[in-house]
Amino acid sequence: MEKKGTILSGMRPTGKLHLGHLIGVLDNWNKLQDEYNCIFEVADWHALTTKYDQTEGLQTNIREQVIDWISAGIDPDKSIIFVQSHVPEIAELHLLLSMIVSVSRLERNPTYKEQVQELGVKDSIPFGLLEYPVLQAADILAFKGTAVPVGEDQLPHIEITREIARRFNYLYDEVFPEPEAKLGKVTKLLGLDGRKMSKSYGNAIYLSDNKEEIEGKVKSMVTDPQRIRLKDPGNPEVCSVYSYHKIFSKSRVDDVAKGCKNASLGCMDCKAILTESIVDYMADIHQRRAELEENPELVDQILANGAQKARKIAKETLEEVRNAMNLKWE
Amino acid sequence: MEKKGTILSGMRPTGKLHLGHLIGVLDNWNKLQDEYNCIFEVADWHALTTKYDQTEGLQTNIREQVIDWISAGIDPDKSIIFVQSHVPEIAELHLLLSMIVSVSRLERNPTYKEQVQELGVKDSIPFGLLEYPVLQAADILAFKGTAVPVGEDQLPHIEITREIARRFNYLYDEVFPEPEAKLGKVTKLLGLDGRKMSKSYGNAIYLSDNKEEIEGKVKSMVTDPQRIRLKDPGNPEVCSVYSYHKIFSKSRVDDVAKGCKNASLGCMDCKAILTESIVDYMADIHQRRAELEENPELVDQILANGAQKARKIAKETLEEVRNAMNLKWE
Ligand code: SF4
Ligand code: SF4
Repeated sequence: MEKKGTILSGMRPTGKLHLGHLIGVLDNWNKLQDEYNCIFEVADWHALTTKYDQTEGLQTNIREQVIDWISAGIDPDKSIIFVQSHVPEIAELHLLLSMIVSVSRLERNPTYKEQVQELGVKDSIPFGLLEYPVLQAADILAFKGTAVPVGEDQLPHIEITREIARRFNYLYDEVFPEPEAKLGKVTKLLGLDGRKMSKSYGNAIYLSDNKEEIEGKVKSMVTDPQRIRLKDPGNPEVCSVYSYHKIFSKSRVDDVAKGCKNASLGCMDCKAILTESIVDYMADIHQRRAELEENPELVDQILANGAQKARKIAKETLEEVRNAMNLKWE
Repeated sequence: MEKKGTILSGMRPTGKLHLGHLIGVLDNWNKLQDEYNCIFEVADWHALTTKYDQTEGLQTNIREQVIDWISAGIDPDKSIIFVQSHVPEIAELHLLLSMIVSVSRLERNPTYKEQVQELGVKDSIPFGLLEYPVLQAADILAFKGTAVPVGEDQLPHIEITREIARRFNYLYDEVFPEPEAKLGKVTKLLGLDGRKMSKSYGNAIYLSDNKEEIEGKVKSMVTDPQRIRLKDPGNPEVCSVYSYHKIFSKSRVDDVAKGCKNASLGCMDCKAILTESIVDYMADIHQRRAELEENPELVDQILANGAQKARKIAKETLEEVRNAMNLKWE
């Protein structure tokens, strides 16, 4: 099938992923794989822009993330999966592109401004934060990405990438496509306690959780606080369990709502249904994970292979870039 | 002979070099070659930090500069001569080191502040200017340079390199030596007209000038304006020609001064002596240049060879750096 273009997306390797990532990002990547040439990056250099002093668990986090991706259906036969730091060509492109951006353009980046406010003392702002959008531009442009799936908050970064691409093409030669931001409808999944799902809140179901762990976590979920006895009718709209049903139990969600409202369905049973739904939803994920865990060298192979493919593309781009800038090489 | 350490020095490829460069820099490099492991870099990426939009003549300038260096005695058998952009490891190190510097540290760099004032509108300040000291740190640290010959104005940059080295060693692992700034007595040579010697003033004698060109330029030099007739005694201290004699005619400089003061030496003869002295001083330079011009492929070989040697060292350093930062690779 003719592909619609090249998509570059990635995540910082911050540890194992949860259902929020699955619903919000990975399920979307999964679909994109058939329509686009997809390139998925484990952004370990980006992780350094804020956590340069916490690199101990980096390799474990990278590995866990890749296992999560592949378990979730990211298919190394369809897409390129690679670790950013395995492709040094991106660093060189980053340096070259940094020459054609202005300081104030990067200072105007809203994310940077926010982080400056958050970190307070200006003395402690890592330079990596300021240059972050240039590194992201290098990620995308190294592969001549034509589309980048993003959330609203990432739009200003993509705009910088587009500006850099335009400016490069204007100054030197037509090398880069201007990548489009691909805004998708993002499905948000809240945590077990109704707050944002986050590792630090301890309210997440992980892609690596097995059936028992999922069951235990679902049991701990907060329900409609007004429904005290089984006979009380419940209000599904204020219940976290129900918000999960809407995503994971699509075929039964109406029955659940009805049963809750007329008190024919108890919370225990309702949660049992949800556990079943989530486990169903994750059946393929669990199976692929089991395969990867049986063959740990598979992950190494996939990453070596991905790095090779990614470097091939990035090298070609870089050669065009060098020629355009009169930086002839060898 | 046991070497005293590793020296990294370089120049931006801005075009052919003149006697000011020879006296001020190259003669010094020449001496350092026997005492240190010397690595000399044609800093083409640095040239981009200010001239990113003027890359047309870059390759010609690089070539001219390397020919000038070798003619001046920089010996590819003793020292490593390489073009910065041929060693992409420096770009990767630059990216990694940029993570551990703060924005404000780079904003406090006096050279940056000056350039900001000069360029006026902050909107037009290239990001490359701000990150310049990090790139210089990467140049030096990639080779574990222990000493860097600099002028006073470069001291703040070396201080940033030292800070980055210390911080890296503290955060991750003892990888880098702290390079010392090596302040040398700099001999300044003025231009033919008594102003600063500069290509843009058209008052320079180039390393590539032949005997006739040197003769013509020396004839055009400004002498003591008070000495109108041959019989007038002159004042050598106000005469540009004499300032050159002090450098190039060391064995005859006292006779020249005497002859000028007692009017026994005419300006024409005085200039003929100077031409002879400069041509003598440059005899080896002219000979080496003639050899290089007969064998243009020699320069390519020297640069290919230099890049290979430089990359070998930089790769080893980078491997240590990656390991220290837990960025394991392959
Ligand atoms: S029955 Fe289900 S939806 Fe209704 S309150 Fe209980 S857990 Fe929530
Ligand atoms: S004799 Fe020589 S030193 Fe004296 S004024 Fe003439 S050129 Fe200058």
